[in-house]
Amino acid sequence: MLVRDIGEFELISKLAAAIAASSQRDIQSLNECGFKMLRAIGDDAAAWHSPQGISVFTADTMVEGVHFERRYTGWRDLGWKALATNVSDVAAMGCAPTYATVTLGLRGDIPVDGLTEMYTGMMELTAACGGAVVGGDIVKSPVFFISVALQGVGHADAHDALLLRDNARPGDLIAVTGTLGASAAGLKLLTEGADAAGLSSYAFLEDAHNRPMPRVSEGEALARSGVRCAMDISDGLVDDLGKLCRASEVGARINAADIPADDRLKATYPSSWLTLALGGGEDYELLFTAPPEVMQSASAALATPATIIGEVVEVGQGVNVFDEDGIRMMVGSGGWDHFRKE
Amino acid sequence: MLVRDIGEFELISKLAAAIAASSQRDIQSLNECGFKMLRAIGDDAAAWHSPQGISVFTADTMVEGVHFERRYTGWRDLGWKALATNVSDVAAMGCAPTYATVTLGLRGDIPVDGLTEMYTGMMELTAACGGAVVGGDIVKSPVFFISVALQGVGHADAHDALLLRDNARPGDLIAVTGTLGASAAGLKLLTEGADAAGLSSYAFLEDAHNRPMPRVSEGEALARSGVRCAMDISDGLVDDLGKLCRASEVGARINAADIPADDRLKATYPSSWLTLALGGGEDYELLFTAPPEVMQSASAALATPATIIGEVVEVGQGVNVFDEDGIRMMVGSGGWDHFRKE
Repeated sequence: MLVRDIGEFELISKLAAAIAASSQRDIQSLNECGFKMLRAIGDDAAAWHSPQGISVFTADTMVEGVHFERRYTGWRDLGWKALATNVSDVAAMGCAPTYATVTLGLRGDIPVDGLTEMYTGMMELTAACGGAVVGGDIVKSPVFFISVALQGVGHADAHDALLLRDNARPGDLIAVTGTLGASAAGLKLLTEGADAAGLSSYAFLEDAHNRPMPRVSEGEALARSGVRCAMDISDGLVDDLGKLCRASEVGARINAADIPADDRLKATYPSSWLTLALGGGEDYELLFTAPPEVMQSASAALATPATIIGEVVEVGQGVNVFDEDGIRMMVGSGGWDHFRKE
Repeated sequence: MLVRDIGEFELISKLAAAIAASSQRDIQSLNECGFKMLRAIGDDAAAWHSPQGISVFTADTMVEGVHFERRYTGWRDLGWKALATNVSDVAAMGCAPTYATVTLGLRGDIPVDGLTEMYTGMMELTAACGGAVVGGDIVKSPVFFISVALQGVGHADAHDALLLRDNARPGDLIAVTGTLGASAAGLKLLTEGADAAGLSSYAFLEDAHNRPMPRVSEGEALARSGVRCAMDISDGLVDDLGKLCRASEVGARINAADIPADDRLKATYPSSWLTLALGGGEDYELLFTAPPEVMQSASAALATPATIIGEVVEVGQGVNVFDEDGIRMMVGSGGWDHFRKE
């Protein structure tokens, strides 16, 4: 069996299963040294309890030609985004970023000035969100890639308050920060051309794709407010909500009319904005669930407005999206497969 | 200017300079949150002081066709080695490994069974050296690579005792753990064929190349014994000693007759074993310096024997290797360039 014969999800499961017993042994040994593992594989980041509180650890990689094209993403934006995707994972645990290592796989024909610009973009991100690049590795590679590993810490006043994927319960409301779909629209504009868009919308959408803003203060505020279930939206709302529901063993009902989208997205793509908002990836907004009473106070504590888009239901019902007439628009059950209008 | 126009060392300097001011700002912000940075770029790992003691953080990547070939390194050995190179960096700081993330860049034609074997090799390494794989990332890539990030902690009874590259002082003795050159000989045998070697030597040398043993307990013992200067040997003794001397602003005298090499290496390569021991890479032994009185007690505390191979001298003298007649064999000054018999 080759990698191309199975999906990413199945591959991760196979690898996790292959090492389960040994991994348990390793984690147990570290537990005995005072490091209490809270979450290894299966969430936005690994998390453990140490004498100083909660620490988290995540890694995320961008490969040229797979995750980015230099003609669409400038050097500075590339640096911002490579770090931002990791910071977003830390934010989705309710934590703040601390130290990062950056590993570069470099071809000989990469311009050095581009790399320094890229680091400048990383520094713009750390200035905005916190954290520091403290090392890494530079290796020769036939394909250009950027591999970042990032640590984070939970806030002292939210001691055991991690945001985990498996804490959703039937009856919880489902909400997202900010708006959805702009990043996917930005990529669409970049690859298909800008004719359809006014200049100001173009800049907004392109920025949404190339300079996503991780929701660090929002993640911390959610954790402090008693929210216990969240993840960041990197693969698209419906896909990621499917992962959250699988982890929590629940289903979800989403109301299409409540999906938040920026007016500039709607104006640029009047017929496809909802498809982009439901299925487009790389929003890096936080998707979270909480009981109604917690949701109310949590939403009030956020710097970026959050919108309630649906509710958590029993597991048998899968992940469903309904239009304003109550007609089911889209189906995902466990693993969401593709857009389908029923 | 392109990456191929400048060396790795110069590239790292340029990138570090480009972000120096911003990086200082980020680290200062974290200092104010109780994370006191001890060492960012420039040693085997980044290191900082947190309420629980010293933490270290390192990253190391292997790219197929650059750092390994699957026909020479089996899947299980590949997993062992990808983690071992990182664990060795943590050991070279005097610390023990804790949590690792593993990022895989995968082509579609990579066999899944190979990957599970690779993780088995990683688990064999953590069973031997400690630490746990707790997450990572799997991405599509046109070239197969393995990027590992690893954290470690200083031992409670060696609180502020990091092993740093810039702590060598004139008058210190220079020592290495184990023996040198076997890994380079193993690679030579693998690539050039095994005709020259007896079977048992072949297995030993191949193992030295594919399953290097990080010197974790040795690094911790050195830190506890009062040693303050060490690094691991990954690019070859003379090259790495040059880096240590540059960081410490000192020179070094090495006695060729004292270089420790295994008899099986000498028997297999009777005329080139010394060249392999001085210049071959990937030994992953610890290179350390200490005043004579510290060196004596430190050496006695090591599970793997250490050998004194020379002494630290004033900076003007560079890094020099002398034969048994006191004739200078090899010169490196600041940046070591190539083998040269004078």
